[in-house]
Amino acid sequence: MIQTVILGNGNLGTHLCQAFEKSKHINLLQNYNRKGKLIHNCTVPVTSNISKIAMAEVYILAFNDSALYELSAFKNLDGLVVHTSGATSLEVLNSFANYGVFYPVQSFKANVPVIFTEVPIAIEANSAVSEKILVHLARAISNKVSVINSSQRKALHLAAVFANNFSNFMYTQALDICIKNNINFDVIKPLISATITKLENTTPDKLQTGPAIRNDKKTINEHLILLENEAQNKLYHQLTKAIQDYYGKEL
Amino acid sequence: MIQTVILGNGNLGTHLCQAFEKSKHINLLQNYNRKGKLIHNCTVPVTSNISKIAMAEVYILAFNDSALYELSAFKNLDGLVVHTSGATSLEVLNSFANYGVFYPVQSFKANVPVIFTEVPIAIEANSAVSEKILVHLARAISNKVSVINSSQRKALHLAAVFANNFSNFMYTQALDICIKNNINFDVIKPLISATITKLENTTPDKLQTGPAIRNDKKTINEHLILLENEAQNKLYHQLTKAIQDYYGKEL
Repeated sequence: MIQTVILGNGNLGTHLCQAFEKSKHINLLQNYNRKGKLIHNCTVPVTSNISKIAMAEVYILAFNDSALYELSAFKNLDGLVVHTSGATSLEVLNSFANYGVFYPVQSFKANVPVIFTEVPIAIEANSAVSEKILVHLARAISNKVSVINSSQRKALHLAAVFANNFSNFMYTQALDICIKNNINFDVIKPLISATITKLENTTPDKLQTGPAIRNDKKTINEHLILLENEAQNKLYHQLTKAIQDYYGKEL
Repeated sequence: MIQTVILGNGNLGTHLCQAFEKSKHINLLQNYNRKGKLIHNCTVPVTSNISKIAMAEVYILAFNDSALYELSAFKNLDGLVVHTSGATSLEVLNSFANYGVFYPVQSFKANVPVIFTEVPIAIEANSAVSEKILVHLARAISNKVSVINSSQRKALHLAAVFANNFSNFMYTQALDICIKNNINFDVIKPLISATITKLENTTPDKLQTGPAIRNDKKTINEHLILLENEAQNKLYHQLTKAIQDYYGKEL
């Protein structure tokens, strides 16, 4: 049983407390949060007093990224101290003797249940011993644990911007077009979820379809004429060109 | 029971035959395809002889888009003749007395099962009578039937380019970054599917996260430095700017 304290009661802190409490391999000793609030659906003791934080093997800082640069109040934590941020350097914790990163690659909402066994957790640590403890801890709640280095974690965060933020913006454009044309966006949703289903068995580069990759100039021109919104028109043009450049077609 | 003949045995033709044969409200009389091939998992009689196509109330042309411009061989079809293409005009069929569009908004693969009740079907017809028949036919297999006009169908197809083709290209960029950094793409997939789950309860414009909308210049600059591939760097820059313009932030 790994003796653990979780600091923070935001979306991630809450979900981690719930998952850790259920695990047979983890002993969740305590949650620290500034207001001393109890954790929803969790019996873990809570403190708001930094000097009363329990002695533990691992301290998980489930704080906002910005809070990770102001850790002086926690300097006396004596154990393996880890943060949970994809974008923050490991070295932000180098004032501690043992430190690491425990990065669940997922976005969390407090009230939406999470199946943690399916959440990838990327581990990084300042030593082989710390790494081993963190892998052990991560495997207690997830079946998808990997050890990555700092440059991989940065790349992973960058890949997530494309896969999550940029793709979501594409859905927003589709929504916009639907609203303007009095089409229910629900008509589009099955197309989106079908892509996800297909990704289970293949890679996205093999799933590319549409007028750009077909170099279907007739449809592309019709679409550019339809797109009266200047920003959207430009985006369509840029993305069509990017797809054609990627797949080696001429616009 | 609507007497129906389906022409074509591609991905969509095959799935439609299977779904129509199961419906209590449809009598699938025949499939026509050039080679007279039997339809997988379907007992419908098949012909390759255009002059032996059965008399029916509705003829569904499940052909490729380009084949819809070469229909002279089928000019004697006597009934309601409809195509299944999102991008093709209704008027391509105006040599028939009664015509329409029966557009399932989904991409099909022959060997991947489809739950047709969940596939949106967009209907368009040259008359109120034809429209009524097509709505009836569509409702026999799907719970998501809508009647749209030509300009809506064009807009729907355009929205699908953003929601499907362009978003898929974002996944490809993420895959690319993963491969270059020796990261398993499976680590990214749960992030993608989580977006889809969230779209069940909200719209994508409310789900936008990431460095662009936060105007997090530090991360944006780090990402642009990481992106040594010129095309990818440009794309990141263009999309970041597009998101910031959309949400009214300065780059």
